[in-house]
Amino acid sequence: VEYKNLPPPFDPYQMDPKRDPELLVQAAKPFNAECPLSQLAKQEYLTPNEKFFVRNHLPVPTGDIVDPKKYVLEIIPGEDQEPVKLTLADLQDEKRFKRKKVSAIVQCSGNRREDQNSVAQVEGLTWYTGAISNAEWEGVALKDVLDYVGVPRDLGINSELEGEDEQLHLQMEGLDRPKVGEWRDTKGFYGASIPLAWAQDPRRDVILTFKMNGEPLPADHGAPVRCLVPGVAGARSVKWLNKLIVASEESQSHWQQNDYKAFNNSTTWETADFSSLPAIQDMPVNSAISWPSPKSLVQLTPDGCVEMKGWAWSGGGRGIARVDVSADGHTWTEAELKRPEGQSLTRTWAWTLWTAKLPVPADLQKPGKALNLIVKAVDAQYNVQPESIESVWNIRGVLCNGWHR
Amino acid sequence: VEYKNLPPPFDPYQMDPKRDPELLVQAAKPFNAECPLSQLAKQEYLTPNEKFFVRNHLPVPTGDIVDPKKYVLEIIPGEDQEPVKLTLADLQDEKRFKRKKVSAIVQCSGNRREDQNSVAQVEGLTWYTGAISNAEWEGVALKDVLDYVGVPRDLGINSELEGEDEQLHLQMEGLDRPKVGEWRDTKGFYGASIPLAWAQDPRRDVILTFKMNGEPLPADHGAPVRCLVPGVAGARSVKWLNKLIVASEESQSHWQQNDYKAFNNSTTWETADFSSLPAIQDMPVNSAISWPSPKSLVQLTPDGCVEMKGWAWSGGGRGIARVDVSADGHTWTEAELKRPEGQSLTRTWAWTLWTAKLPVPADLQKPGKALNLIVKAVDAQYNVQPESIESVWNIRGVLCNGWHR
Ligand SMILES: [Mo]
Ligand SMILES: [Mo]
Repeated sequence: VEYKNLPPPFDPYQMDPKRDPELLVQAAKPFNAECPLSQLAKQEYLTPNEKFFVRNHLPVPTGDIVDPKKYVLEIIPGEDQEPVKLTLADLQDEKRFKRKKVSAIVQCSGNRREDQNSVAQVEGLTWYTGAISNAEWEGVALKDVLDYVGVPRDLGINSELEGEDEQLHLQMEGLDRPKVGEWRDTKGFYGASIPLAWAQDPRRDVILTFKMNGEPLPADHGAPVRCLVPGVAGARSVKWLNKLIVASEESQSHWQQNDYKAFNNSTTWETADFSSLPAIQDMPVNSAISWPSPKSLVQLTPDGCVEMKGWAWSGGGRGIARVDVSADGHTWTEAELKRPEGQSLTRTWAWTLWTAKLPVPADLQKPGKALNLIVKAVDAQYNVQPESIESVWNIRGVLCNGWHR
Repeated sequence: VEYKNLPPPFDPYQMDPKRDPELLVQAAKPFNAECPLSQLAKQEYLTPNEKFFVRNHLPVPTGDIVDPKKYVLEIIPGEDQEPVKLTLADLQDEKRFKRKKVSAIVQCSGNRREDQNSVAQVEGLTWYTGAISNAEWEGVALKDVLDYVGVPRDLGINSELEGEDEQLHLQMEGLDRPKVGEWRDTKGFYGASIPLAWAQDPRRDVILTFKMNGEPLPADHGAPVRCLVPGVAGARSVKWLNKLIVASEESQSHWQQNDYKAFNNSTTWETADFSSLPAIQDMPVNSAISWPSPKSLVQLTPDGCVEMKGWAWSGGGRGIARVDVSADGHTWTEAELKRPEGQSLTRTWAWTLWTAKLPVPADLQKPGKALNLIVKAVDAQYNVQPESIESVWNIRGVLCNGWHR
């Protein structure tokens, strides 16, 4: 379907897939919806596909280009090199590529943006805590595919020289395309990039995925093939993958260059220099309370405690060292952690679900008293969440990881 | 010298080397001293050897064991395997091992502990901001040495399985030994470990170093050979290196198991369970003001600004994305950064020196008014420093990275 040849009243979103009515919709076109809080409160390790949060930047592509029988992935293994083309059948040929499963979070850089709006209005979807979900992704190791098409290993992961890594990038292009004349300053397809060294690193576990929780990848999550980059902002896990390009510069897309970056809270749209900051990749530690839900009535335990549960996660493969909960912001009780099975603290991609039993101060153990429940997490590198939202507030409303209340 | 055979009045520290009188001594025996604030304020990228902070846990070893002509490094490449012995001449044989230089910070996990004491007394040396320095280390890549002695690469860096990494560790033992009957709960040599995967990772740049800023490694910094682990707590860069052991468990030393870990601020020595937390390895983002010095008189610029300078650093190879300074804790001015040359943002080991010109609010531009200058840094993963010291206070006084004032 070539949208640009269609007359103006045509709605490029009309062929978007049907969605679960329980998803908490933040925008209809492009479709963006949270994992419902009721799902998060269940503390299921794997989020069911239909409840998995959806972050689309553009209409879901349709037609031959995403037909599993006709799909073609193009890989350009280096500058001035011929593209190598792989079909879905090629990728799924187990004689060529070993299958690989990874349980991993996908989280939007804007998750918890609503908390920033409570300080001052920012630009972006007003996500609460549900722009995050966890699934088991199946596919093939990206590094194996890069080996197969002849990308030399010593360019990235085995580079000996300090500084050499950042000179090479793996650019990704999606099949999703803009609505003509509407999307701000980009004319091309959706695009992003990661350092080539990460794409080639066996311990980064980057995969080209075509199965999600044991089912074929759904349309909203990038069918037929998504490049799943664990530990990194969701925006770099490019859906409906069209091209992979080994290049000496980052993706020049709007989303890589001029969108997902976090300024300090005194920087305005007028003073912001996007070229001065790195693109968000590995994400900082974050956590949220999934139960009790905000402003709900809680039942104390006979010994005067409130039971809490939620999630914690950090980027770059760092597991969660500690989760602390509090009713006053000064004294803390450690939560019990359910760390992802089979993922070490230096290679954790899935979330750590936590439960806690927090003693409530005697003067608050009365009907009608409000509890100010707080959670903060610490990752395996002992990165912490900052106390206030104000201190991490930024014009783009990204990376909101102040203590969650 | 076998201390244990010497009579009780013998002082094992009497043979410690002579030190620069400008070092800010925090403890004489074992010797622990900060890089002087005057040196930090100079903003020299490389700290001169004699001004480099010293963190010793035990007496400096002396005699044949550290004699460059007689020194022997023992490497046990796997369980139940024979040790391989390498002399300093072997390590320095450029036909066998390619030389490698790395500019890297060493920072004590307890740096800035004094700030925690201002909340409540903690255990440990009362470091101000100077338990950090930066040098150019020359030596050989640890991964090359591990290759040479036959440690299989697929054990660590190339491991395909999630979770496999943490099953193997590189244990290090120092030649420094305890004062008999004095050191708390360890009887052995100084010891530490890192994941084997990091030891083998070319992008981690771990080296066995024998030169510091172009000079032979000084006695206080581990002569003749130190294992320098960039991006990681100084305690894991074992000085006076005696043994390297590939093992299925971490070092069981006091310092790996029961010392360098950070609890929440409500955990006491009575409730602390050291086995529940990971050993500090990659360190969280931190920064400090080196100029103006605390409580000094400052001269404002003609346009009503105060000039500030300092350092910022983060562990795990993450460069510094942003440094913000403030006089009120609410509005922030971006500092100018001098990022380490030749080190990319995903492979930065040296510090980022910063300077800033901070506008002073009109009502504070008067003689006698106190300025509350603040700095906070953000690393390339957008990890931030928390506002308060209270929120990161812990019984051991480690990892103090609240905003520096
Ligand atoms: Mo996102
Ligand atoms: Mo340390």
